[in-house]
This record gives sequence, C-alpha cells and structure tokens, in this order.
Amino acid sequence: MNSVKIGLLGLGTVGGGTVNVLKRNAAEITRRAGCNIEVISASARDLTKPRICDTAGIELTTQAAEIVENPDVNIVVELIGGDTLAHEMVMRAIANGKHVVTANKALIAKHGNEIFAAAQKQGVIVAFEAAVAGGIPIIKAIREGLAGNHIEWLAGIINGTGNFILTEMRDKGRDFEDVLAEAQSLGYAEADPTFDVEGIDAAHKLTILASIAFGIPLQFEKAFTEGITKITREDVEYAEELGYRIKHLGVSRRTDSGIELRVHPTLIPEKRLIANVDGVMNAVLVQGDAVGPTLYYGAGAGADATASAVVADIIDIARVLTAEPSHRVPYLAFQPDQMADTPILPMEEVVTAYYLRMSVIDNPGVLAEITRILGESTISIEAMIQKAGKSEGDVVPLILMTHEVKEGLMNQAINAIEKLDAIQGEIARIRVESLE
Amino acid sequence: MNSVKIGLLGLGTVGGGTVNVLKRNAAEITRRAGCNIEVISASARDLTKPRICDTAGIELTTQAAEIVENPDVNIVVELIGGDTLAHEMVMRAIANGKHVVTANKALIAKHGNEIFAAAQKQGVIVAFEAAVAGGIPIIKAIREGLAGNHIEWLAGIINGTGNFILTEMRDKGRDFEDVLAEAQSLGYAEADPTFDVEGIDAAHKLTILASIAFGIPLQFEKAFTEGITKITREDVEYAEELGYRIKHLGVSRRTDSGIELRVHPTLIPEKRLIANVDGVMNAVLVQGDAVGPTLYYGAGAGADATASAVVADIIDIARVLTAEPSHRVPYLAFQPDQMADTPILPMEEVVTAYYLRMSVIDNPGVLAEITRILGESTISIEAMIQKAGKSEGDVVPLILMTHEVKEGLMNQAINAIEKLDAIQGEIARIRVESLE
Repeated sequence: MNSVKIGLLGLGTVGGGTVNVLKRNAAEITRRAGCNIEVISASARDLTKPRICDTAGIELTTQAAEIVENPDVNIVVELIGGDTLAHEMVMRAIANGKHVVTANKALIAKHGNEIFAAAQKQGVIVAFEAAVAGGIPIIKAIREGLAGNHIEWLAGIINGTGNFILTEMRDKGRDFEDVLAEAQSLGYAEADPTFDVEGIDAAHKLTILASIAFGIPLQFEKAFTEGITKITREDVEYAEELGYRIKHLGVSRRTDSGIELRVHPTLIPEKRLIANVDGVMNAVLVQGDAVGPTLYYGAGAGADATASAVVADIIDIARVLTAEPSHRVPYLAFQPDQMADTPILPMEEVVTAYYLRMSVIDNPGVLAEITRILGESTISIEAMIQKAGKSEGDVVPLILMTHEVKEGLMNQAINAIEKLDAIQGEIARIRVESLE
Repeated sequence: MNSVKIGLLGLGTVGGGTVNVLKRNAAEITRRAGCNIEVISASARDLTKPRICDTAGIELTTQAAEIVENPDVNIVVELIGGDTLAHEMVMRAIANGKHVVTANKALIAKHGNEIFAAAQKQGVIVAFEAAVAGGIPIIKAIREGLAGNHIEWLAGIINGTGNFILTEMRDKGRDFEDVLAEAQSLGYAEADPTFDVEGIDAAHKLTILASIAFGIPLQFEKAFTEGITKITREDVEYAEELGYRIKHLGVSRRTDSGIELRVHPTLIPEKRLIANVDGVMNAVLVQGDAVGPTLYYGAGAGADATASAVVADIIDIARVLTAEPSHRVPYLAFQPDQMADTPILPMEEVVTAYYLRMSVIDNPGVLAEITRILGESTISIEAMIQKAGKSEGDVVPLILMTHEVKEGLMNQAINAIEKLDAIQGEIARIRVESLE
C-alpha cells in the first residue's frame, strides 16, 4: 500500500492532537483513505518541551523551513498559528509544490486570497476545515454539502470562550469579569483574552464562512466587530424576561445592496435551537434557498476535536492526490475565476432589531421624549420593560425592544436620546436577530 | 465550458425539485462546479400529469430504460423510489458505465451491497446523500468530515412524520391517532403510514448511517424496529414530569460484542439539543472519539431540501469525473475491501435504561412484588411516579424509570410482572438514552 507523507509545523495542542489521532486511529483511517498516512517530520521551537503526543519515529527539528523544503513531504500541515512564520512557511510549501493543511483562521482570513492564488498557480490543495469551528465539518458542509444552494445567510456561535462566558453569566447570574477570570484559570481563555472577547477570532472565522458561502474574496478588514465586554448580568436577565438569550454571534447575510459581515452580541429568541448551544460548544446555522435552515453543532476547540478536522483534510488530499487540479473542490467553494465582487455592506446600512437599555430619571414626560426621537428615525417599539422608581426623580432602568431599522438611523437616535437630561450615562445597545 | 449531462428517472416531488434547483441556481452551481450541469432527458410514468417544474428543453419519455441506455447521459439520477424498477435501472446504468445519484433509502439499505460491488467493478460513483435526512449533508459529514474519527455511536431523528406526530402530542396534549390523521391530511404522512410510524423508513436510513460510520456492510434485515403507534399522551406527559422528551430515535452504537442497530421510541433528557428538535425537522447526533459529540440539523424531506442533496452529489461527481476511481471517496466511507464483519448485536443483548408504565391495582405489597422481580433480573429503579387511587383496590398508573440493563433481562422481568394479579393489561416500555 502506498503512503502519504506528512510534515508537521508545530507540536502544540493541535499538532500533538493530530499526531495522537493519526496514531490511535491509523488502522481505521487507512481503511477509509486507502493509503497509509505517516507523519515523517515535525518542527517545534523548543524540542525539550514536554509533548501531549508520542513523537517516536518522527524526525524532529526546530527549523520549520526544513520541513517545507523536504522533498519527501507530500502534505505540509501548518499548526504554528499567527501570521508571520506561518505565512512564510505556507507560501514556501506551496512554491515547492506541496499540498497544505492549516488550522490557522487568522492566516486564511487575512492572507487567504494571496495563498489561494499561489496554490492555484502551483496546482496544489490548501485545506482549512480546522480553521472554523474546530471539529465541526462546516467548511465541507457549505462548500460541498450545500453546493446546490443559493446561500441566503449564516449565523454562528464560533468562539467557545465567549459562549462559555455568556452561558455562565446566564446560568449562574455571574458578572462578565468574574467568569472571564475563571475561563482564564481553566485555560479556555488566553492571558490576553482580546481575540476571544472582542470578537476578532470570531471575525476571522466569519470572514472565511462568508467567502465560501457567497463566493466573495476574503475581506477580514471590512468585518464589523463588537465584543461582549459590555454585556451586564442585567442585560442577560432582561433578555430572559423578554424571551431571548444573548449570544456572541457572527452573522453574514446577502442583501440587495451588499453582504453583511458582522460579529456582535445578539439577542436570539430562546426557542431557536442555536439559542440553546451552551458552554464552550460552537454551532453554525446556514440558510440555503433549497435546503432551508440547517445547523451544525460540536466542539469548536481542543486538541482532539481540532485534530479531527485536520485529519479529515489530510484524508481528502490523500484521496485526490492524483486528480486533475481542475476537478478538485475549489479552495473557497467557487472556482477561483468565479469570485463575485459583491460589496461588503457598511454597518450603517445593516437592518436589524435592537434591544436598548438605559438609565432614566423617573420623571413624567421622559418616555414621551424618547419615543418621539425614535419616531423621528422611523423606529417603532416592540416591547418595553420599565422598572418603576420608589419616588419621582429616581434613576431607573428602561429596556426597549425595537422593530427593524437601519443601524445608521439607530445611531442617530441613540445619540439624540443620550443628550436628554433625563438619561444617565451611555445607552447599552444589543442587536436582535429572529434567525428565521 | 464543458457540460455534464444528467438523465433523470422520475419527475415527482424530488425529481421536480431537482430540475427547479438546477435551473434556479444554474449560474451559482456553475461557478462552484466549474462546468455546466444540464438535464437532457427525464422519464415519468405519465407524461400528461402536471409537474412542479418546467420541463422545457428536457427530452421526456415514459421509458426509464431509454435514459439508462442513452450514450449522452453521464449521470443517471434515480428518483423513482421503491426497489423494483429503481433497482433494475440503477444496475443497468452502472453496467453501462454511468455514474448514479439516488435519493432511494430502501434501495440502498436493501440492495446497496450488490449495487456498490457492481459500481466498484465498473469504476463508477453511486452517491446517495439524499437517501438520509433529506438536505442535511450527513453522509458527507460522517464519510469525509469525520473520517479521522473512530465513531462511537450515532443517534438520529430521521423520520419527519414521526417527529411531527410526537411534537404535536407533546405541545398540544393530543392523541396519536388524532395527529396522524392531521399529518395525512397535510400530506406529511402517506395514506399508508406504516413506513413512517412503524420505523421502517428510519431503519432504512439508520442502516446506511451505521454502514458508513462503522465500516460494515448494509444489514437492514438485522435492524430492530419498533414504531410509535403505542405511545400515549400520558407517556408523553409522564416523560415530561421526569425531565425527558419522547423521540423516535434510530440508534447505532459500537460495543465490544457487536453493533447495535435499533429504531424505537426513546426518552431523552430534555436538556439535550436533539430533544428540542421539533416538528418535521431531522437531526443526527454523531459521537466520534476525536471530535466528541456533533449534531447536524435540517429538513429531512421536501422537494427542494431533498433536491439540495441530490444536486450536491451531482456536483461532487461532476468535479471528480476524471479522477482515478481509487482516489475517490469510497461508497460506504471505507474502502470496499476493508469492510468489517463486526456482528450486529441482537436486541436482547442491547443495554439501555427503561421507562415502564403499568396499570396497577392499588393494594399494599404490590410495589414490593414488582421491585422483587426487577431485583431478580438485577434491575434497579432510578425514579418512580405513583399516582394514588381514591380508595384501596383502585387501578392506578405506576411509572418506573430503571437503571441500565440488558434488554433480555428486562423482557424476562416484564413477562413476570405482567403475570402478577395486580397488573392490568400490558406494560408499556420505552427505552431511555442519556446520549452522553
């Protein structure tokens, strides 16, 4: 039986998991792939560091470059992370005619267009299932499983740390900072949690999903990103009272004027399946014109779960190694010369409903002023929670749910309302999606 | 641009949907596939019947044989249903060197081994994504997306009619017969609903899923099948009281002694995502050793949703038309010469927990007798609902939830308990799965 030879860049969590899964399931994988898959060499910055995997039989090096230059390597698996060394190594691997598998969402979201153009020229595959939602085969589902559809929109919980924090806030009535500290001590969140809680990690993934769903080039720089750091325990409770859950959602939607590409906290009706995706789990909801709504759920991170996607990509490549490049699945689902130039919609043009929470001095006439301002921006109110103060002049919370309106009009209205004397501090605003 | 030519057998719901989706999304499909996909001929029993699709430009015939013999046809799409004419036509298409796409679960579950052997010999593809769970790309997810995993078990709601009935029974407190009649009038259920409500349709699909998950030949005849016709409104309510939902589940699990293959009503903890899959929707939960639990949700039937899967299969074939057969994805996920002979476990050997509902004459000592019999079969009780009668000697319901035990031992215990004088009629038994 022939053998496909892997060179592994990085032996950290995902690299170690990949070695483990390939070894543990070697017999079963060969039964599926029809060939042996063998890790012949691997690189790591520090070879003395303890590993989660057995590296016996694997040639180890501190020089990633040795692997991408190794003529025996068929597939380079990039699990270094970041977009400096990883970027350079992937480009060199491609230049050397090697197929590439990567779990690196930042790399694909920011440099994917350049990478795929080079790969197309060299006739090699670049596979990146592990870059989005860990072990969930969501890239394959959209790119191949739903290939007959005109995708209308997709929405995903694609950052496990953020979802863990929001779930704990809801289940246990805890504060954001408190849960974040715990997530850091559990190893879910990095020491610098910015990528997770500010939505940057989710925006990388959403950029990739939007590209394969809508046939547009990767445009990470145009993604709108809002984090969950300002969500309060009270917001979670008010949302609950209104029949909603707050999730940090990546949403991309095709509209007549462009494609929405946005990551932000979102109220979702509690009855939706995706509203019940809790803890560190990920889920992506995809709406196709033929298939209707479909949902994909699973672990979005972790050594073995991410390795599951890496190994699936390796098997895919092993199977088609000899197929003509023009008959392979295209990198971004659509043929490279068939990408669309549909613009990404500026956030001001996006239409959604809103949850607004503000602190109001409990005086007669305040509500009338607020509704007048909203009315001037054509914003109508769907639901309201008004907590009465003990006496006139007390500061009380006022929660409004609005009907759909353009973000730009809502921005104007919020600015105007915040200028009212009766309003204390800033208005908290969370977007609302019915996901129907 | 080159063009792939389709011959369509059957112009009913799915056939019409396929023509519609291919036409409506033609530009987008070509952008993905890199070639045009063209339905050149189609067969139907009665050409005068009104169609849901526009058949302009398609050569129509009443003779399916003309299509499988047509030298211009690259891919035969079988959407006749049943396993007589469909079986013959698929075998002839393969003999003629044509690739085949089918949505026919009965055909694959019952004749798949013969079909795939013939296809392997001829070097043609037989694709069947639409045969299981309609538009959900579950075959692709297990066969390719999770190809690095040792699959441990899978469990699915894979019959929409059954799920619609159970959902209505729960949401509206209605009786089985009442909802079935409505499902028939809505067109969800056939005039003869046996295939749906007795679990035969689900068993066809489960047989296929088990084969690709575990690398075993298709063995429909060994599937255990129990319908939902005996589920009462009371069972649904008691399950609710205990924190469970009743779903008609297909379960296949790898054990040391063999593979479980069973379709039956099942109590599932209400917190599980799959317990909240309602109405006609389908969902499949797959547990892999690397990826952990993953769930796939969507429409399990309908013209366009099923066509979504048919078209995805067509695009897959169009892409690899020139690839060497040995580099294609194998029919049943594992290479044909690598199928395992792991036995299907007889139902008596299957271990699950149970919900038991019985009518008991409310006398002192009855409960002691029941628990003694259960104890003799090593069955312990996890929860109990006992509704007190108004006076001694009244017939009252007794509901027991047991811990896990072999089905054979449970059968013995039920037989013994039913012989007690204090027990009226038969004991209702529903299996319980924690799905963890």
